[in-house]
Amino acid sequence: MGKVNSITSPAPKGGVSYKQISIEYENMPVILKPVYTGICGTDRGIVNGALQFAYCPPGYSDLALGHESICKVVSAKSNEFGIRSGDLVVPQVRRPGKCLNCATGRSDNCSDGDKHEAGITGMHGFMREEFGDYPEYLLKVSSDSIREVGVLTEPLKNVEKAFEVYEVASRRSISTDRFGSLSEKRAIVIGTGSEAFLYALKCRDYGFQTLITNRHPVDDLKMKFLDAAGVEFFDYTKEHRDSKGWDLVIDTSGDPGTILRFLRKTNNNGNIILFGTNGKAPATGIDGQDIDYIIERNIFLIGSVDGARVHYERALQDLERWNAQYGDRLKSLITHRFSPQDTSVFTKKDPLEIKSVIDWSM
Amino acid sequence: MGKVNSITSPAPKGGVSYKQISIEYENMPVILKPVYTGICGTDRGIVNGALQFAYCPPGYSDLALGHESICKVVSAKSNEFGIRSGDLVVPQVRRPGKCLNCATGRSDNCSDGDKHEAGITGMHGFMREEFGDYPEYLLKVSSDSIREVGVLTEPLKNVEKAFEVYEVASRRSISTDRFGSLSEKRAIVIGTGSEAFLYALKCRDYGFQTLITNRHPVDDLKMKFLDAAGVEFFDYTKEHRDSKGWDLVIDTSGDPGTILRFLRKTNNNGNIILFGTNGKAPATGIDGQDIDYIIERNIFLIGSVDGARVHYERALQDLERWNAQYGDRLKSLITHRFSPQDTSVFTKKDPLEIKSVIDWSM
Amino acid sequence: MGKVNSITSPAPKGGVSYKQISIEYENMPVILKPVYTGICGTDRGIVNGALQFAYCPPGYSDLALGHESICKVVSAKSNEFGIRSGDLVVPQVRRPGKCLNCATGRSDNCSDGDKHEAGITGMHGFMREEFGDYPEYLLKVSSDSIREVGVLTEPLKNVEKAFEVYEVASRRSISTDRFGSLSEKRAIVIGTGSEAFLYALKCRDYGFQTLITNRHPVDDLKMKFLDAAGVEFFDYTKEHRDSKGWDLVIDTSGDPGTILRFLRKTNNNGNIILFGTNGKAPATGIDGQDIDYIIERNIFLIGSVDGARVHYERALQDLERWNAQYGDRLKSLITHRFSPQDTSVFTKKDPLEIKSVIDWSM
Amino acid sequence: MGKVNSITSPAPKGGVSYKQISIEYENMPVILKPVYTGICGTDRGIVNGALQFAYCPPGYSDLALGHESICKVVSAKSNEFGIRSGDLVVPQVRRPGKCLNCATGRSDNCSDGDKHEAGITGMHGFMREEFGDYPEYLLKVSSDSIREVGVLTEPLKNVEKAFEVYEVASRRSISTDRFGSLSEKRAIVIGTGSEAFLYALKCRDYGFQTLITNRHPVDDLKMKFLDAAGVEFFDYTKEHRDSKGWDLVIDTSGDPGTILRFLRKTNNNGNIILFGTNGKAPATGIDGQDIDYIIERNIFLIGSVDGARVHYERALQDLERWNAQYGDRLKSLITHRFSPQDTSVFTKKDPLEIKSVIDWSM
Repeated sequence: MGKVNSITSPAPKGGVSYKQISIEYENMPVILKPVYTGICGTDRGIVNGALQFAYCPPGYSDLALGHESICKVVSAKSNEFGIRSGDLVVPQVRRPGKCLNCATGRSDNCSDGDKHEAGITGMHGFMREEFGDYPEYLLKVSSDSIREVGVLTEPLKNVEKAFEVYEVASRRSISTDRFGSLSEKRAIVIGTGSEAFLYALKCRDYGFQTLITNRHPVDDLKMKFLDAAGVEFFDYTKEHRDSKGWDLVIDTSGDPGTILRFLRKTNNNGNIILFGTNGKAPATGIDGQDIDYIIERNIFLIGSVDGARVHYERALQDLERWNAQYGDRLKSLITHRFSPQDTSVFTKKDPLEIKSVIDWSM
Repeated sequence: MGKVNSITSPAPKGGVSYKQISIEYENMPVILKPVYTGICGTDRGIVNGALQFAYCPPGYSDLALGHESICKVVSAKSNEFGIRSGDLVVPQVRRPGKCLNCATGRSDNCSDGDKHEAGITGMHGFMREEFGDYPEYLLKVSSDSIREVGVLTEPLKNVEKAFEVYEVASRRSISTDRFGSLSEKRAIVIGTGSEAFLYALKCRDYGFQTLITNRHPVDDLKMKFLDAAGVEFFDYTKEHRDSKGWDLVIDTSGDPGTILRFLRKTNNNGNIILFGTNGKAPATGIDGQDIDYIIERNIFLIGSVDGARVHYERALQDLERWNAQYGDRLKSLITHRFSPQDTSVFTKKDPLEIKSVIDWSM
Repeated sequence: MGKVNSITSPAPKGGVSYKQISIEYENMPVILKPVYTGICGTDRGIVNGALQFAYCPPGYSDLALGHESICKVVSAKSNEFGIRSGDLVVPQVRRPGKCLNCATGRSDNCSDGDKHEAGITGMHGFMREEFGDYPEYLLKVSSDSIREVGVLTEPLKNVEKAFEVYEVASRRSISTDRFGSLSEKRAIVIGTGSEAFLYALKCRDYGFQTLITNRHPVDDLKMKFLDAAGVEFFDYTKEHRDSKGWDLVIDTSGDPGTILRFLRKTNNNGNIILFGTNGKAPATGIDGQDIDYIIERNIFLIGSVDGARVHYERALQDLERWNAQYGDRLKSLITHRFSPQDTSVFTKKDPLEIKSVIDWSM
Repeated sequence: MGKVNSITSPAPKGGVSYKQISIEYENMPVILKPVYTGICGTDRGIVNGALQFAYCPPGYSDLALGHESICKVVSAKSNEFGIRSGDLVVPQVRRPGKCLNCATGRSDNCSDGDKHEAGITGMHGFMREEFGDYPEYLLKVSSDSIREVGVLTEPLKNVEKAFEVYEVASRRSISTDRFGSLSEKRAIVIGTGSEAFLYALKCRDYGFQTLITNRHPVDDLKMKFLDAAGVEFFDYTKEHRDSKGWDLVIDTSGDPGTILRFLRKTNNNGNIILFGTNGKAPATGIDGQDIDYIIERNIFLIGSVDGARVHYERALQDLERWNAQYGDRLKSLITHRFSPQDTSVFTKKDPLEIKSVIDWSM
């Protein structure tokens, strides 16, 4: 039974350790080592004991953390997915239950909630020196050029799924301009974290006039990135840019008050993608006129979570293109690197952080 | 210039009169007389001066009311729509502006708000002894058997549009059961007015287990109708029926507090159709956990207003079938009849009312 | 082991007998007796030995025929589908295999062909004095008024499926007219059998200008039915009606030469639904210009087979409405009635036949 | 009135010259010079006098050729499309008429055929030393790295449109595998020209097991490219690879006999995209069993032509990514370069040609 160094938390109590835990994995068809693993709000939430839905696998009092990762295949039994020793791969986070959506490979749309998420709910995560997995849950990274930014695949797959859902939703009316494109339509992304940046890049790809906002200014590094991507920033506590309204609103803040503020300036046939969660965000009032506003304009509010295999595939493709298009700018999204032993990253967050990663070679 | 008896209101000030007003219509290609015109909350809202968006056509200080109607064609110039003298027809309420959605016959999805609604915004309504219209806005009623219930075509077209939108939205995941149908899925309609009843009938047609609710019991006539249609009523202030959650929530109340109550019991991949408006409904608190709930379950909140020509067509077909299927039960939805002169219906509402109509033969 | 009188054929050899065969059914959850069973080309094909894909259930040298039926429930174990003794029901024909489409209740879209069809492929059909089934495959007929025309549910469910597919396909471009409807669009149905008539009625419901054609004139009964439904007939060997082209072509003939003839007059963004099969239809030439024609106009050729539970539900609803709308005209589609003993119907076809049925009370 | 050197043909008679023609363009809002223009079968067809649908603009007896191009902006009046002097751009080929599809920016789906195509039908093409255009028809190339392969944008936009249509069509059933992806599904591209290669790359991006075929072997350069892209070639006159059938067939040959050969091995719910045209391809027989095959398997045959602004945008994004992913391999698709004066390229085709371009700097 393999004892391997892992970053663990006794979920859902909170706390974090770098220590050896025993997890049988040697007989799994694919053996992997992490290259980079990303840190996100969920990891910090578990460590802070703020996420009551997190739990350990049966028989364990510790949960190995980690769901954003890019890994190296150490060895692989022959398989039909073409996963071979030496490959760079991204493992899927969510694993299917038995509902119809799960049965068709869409555990992101799990109907009954009976699924697991690596490093979060009942399944060990990827912050382990070495671990095993099944080839069907591994996505091959085609090029070494995105070895580093590839750690963004997992957060980006959420964006890909959200846009798939947006495409379904936007078919209810003509949502393009007179050129059949989106160049006359306006998207606003609320928030300026890494996930917000990924959403903004995707909005640009779709051809939207894209703005991004927060309730405070952003630092110079972020401004340079946004400029390069053709995304306009404004501080919504200081300025309004809503005279033409919003056709697409994407929220990464999870704050109802902020969502409502932008909802009230959403255009006819507009879509509001709810993505960011903040269970502690205070209540805001929604009244009859807000409901009326949504109805009269045929507006959709769209909750979107997770993504499926196909979204990991698209994420990898987008990263490859963005890497070509934005070059070092894209890499600059990864602002901080930590060694596995240095668990301080889970409890402190540098204001200049866009994405912090654990570098398993450190 | 034709002076005809009309039911009018000096919108948006409020008030109602049955009086002669001069509206040129004699040269219009089709001349019509109303048979029945329905009364709904919008009519009463205009009369009460509660709807500030209502306004008179240019040059008029009175607005002829009426948008729910079934009419008889008095005369018609030859046209390619097959509208002929003697036909029973339902006139469309909304008339297109110049946006792309309007240009393609979908003024219900008007992008810029530059459209008009008969009897509501800048265009005279159908509560006139005689009036003129264009053949392209008239929907032929194929059978005299729905002469009376045909007055429900206009409210029902809203339901047809909402279900079209629901169908688009529900394609984002597998939303049917293991039989490819909806017999294991649960719909709840909030409200027990005529529009709620039409929604409930449509839910039944789709195969949903259908419940309807209000914050008070309903009278015997309504209970009998609901029984016949296989719709289960409960008073949500007394009972809960949400242990299995809701797959489709349809709100006709416009009350945020009630909407949130049912939202919090909506199932994964569920849809909440917002239809009812009540600009004076008090605010309710929506917090971070509500946003989180919507996201984790991939829930959609769907604002839906109005309907297009195709929805009037489907409404007429559904009324024809329901008339066959439910017989007198369907007719029983029309609970009250008034003469055009008796404008009391605009200011009083009998608690037993489902739908009140003006009978222009009285 | 129950011996019951059945209409059988030693598939795929051909032949037909009314005789007793032993099929265990007494322990099935629902026991049924047929009321009417329809005869279609497939039944005759099996009897003629022309359908090599037909086969008997394992261990049987006879196949009980019959897939178009309306039945009475003799007894039913308690079930969640609401099937009770005395109910009129229509049994589904196709039964699922194990592919993803079958698993989600869509055996009509079976991915691997591993399904069965009652009375056709490896499963006994419904032409048995008494038989058993599972409640999940039975569709309740809500009203006794369609007791007779209800036998058309099974063929009509194919039409409902084909139109579902048409709706998916037609979303690739704007396929409606400037009123958002189909009143300026033209549909042509090839063939004048019962299935063609059902397609024509559905085209009318969608609002198409609807024509129907064959290579010979039709009798008076058919002409009267078509007139009542607003469908125009022409003999394509004598007349052309294609100066405005076709937006929707529906073929029930299975004849490639006829399909190509109408394909060559199909409009931009047009759809051609292939439904009718005739394995013995002679080859016709398709050349580079035909392929070019399809491409330049963005035309779809759509193969569509069978239908799922949801399509049986819609078929029942349409029959209920058409029965109200067309009255005796709809019933007139059932032109011939036979007793179970009189198997001559399988080998002879009256030229005046629209639909022949076996009346199990005779 | 500007006289500029142009490559012209007296369409539809055939012939080609490099000569000065007078075309007023100086007052157009954007002035451009071609950088590269691609040669395709349509250009050669016009020059050979084989395309009777080609015609000159009103008042001209010569048609400037050229529709595949990447151009440099010489000067631009201020515009809302961000087109500025110095930009690299790709001009759209098709220009809208007045139908509903054209009005919404989708002239690729033109309903009435009343559109124009630069260099083909009634509008001068881009093989002119200098010419003018409107900013709304110009697509900005974001990076100089695709200056050369950018000439593939125009042919690639057809692929992007075809896949948009494929996505609509494939929604009729579950068309993905148990992982919600396409890794267990098989695509076959018929033909080995440049357009076929672009289709094959796109199939790979979608995750299909991708094969490409022709009736003869391919040269070493092509084999290397296909290997790099993970696409398997076979000569269908020598080998069969159809034991598992085809889920997606893409034809670029326009040859009915070849299409039918692969159609007969298409899987349930499969799609056949018809793209290649060859008006002179000989007829092949299609019989009743072929029609039956299409129907029983719910197969779609999909004609797809041209692409809209949005497809040019996606083509540019894919080229940028493929350029990063495949590097020099992608550039190797451009096998031949000609000076504008050397019109021999229009009448001769090197067997090793994948894509020939005119280099306007030569």
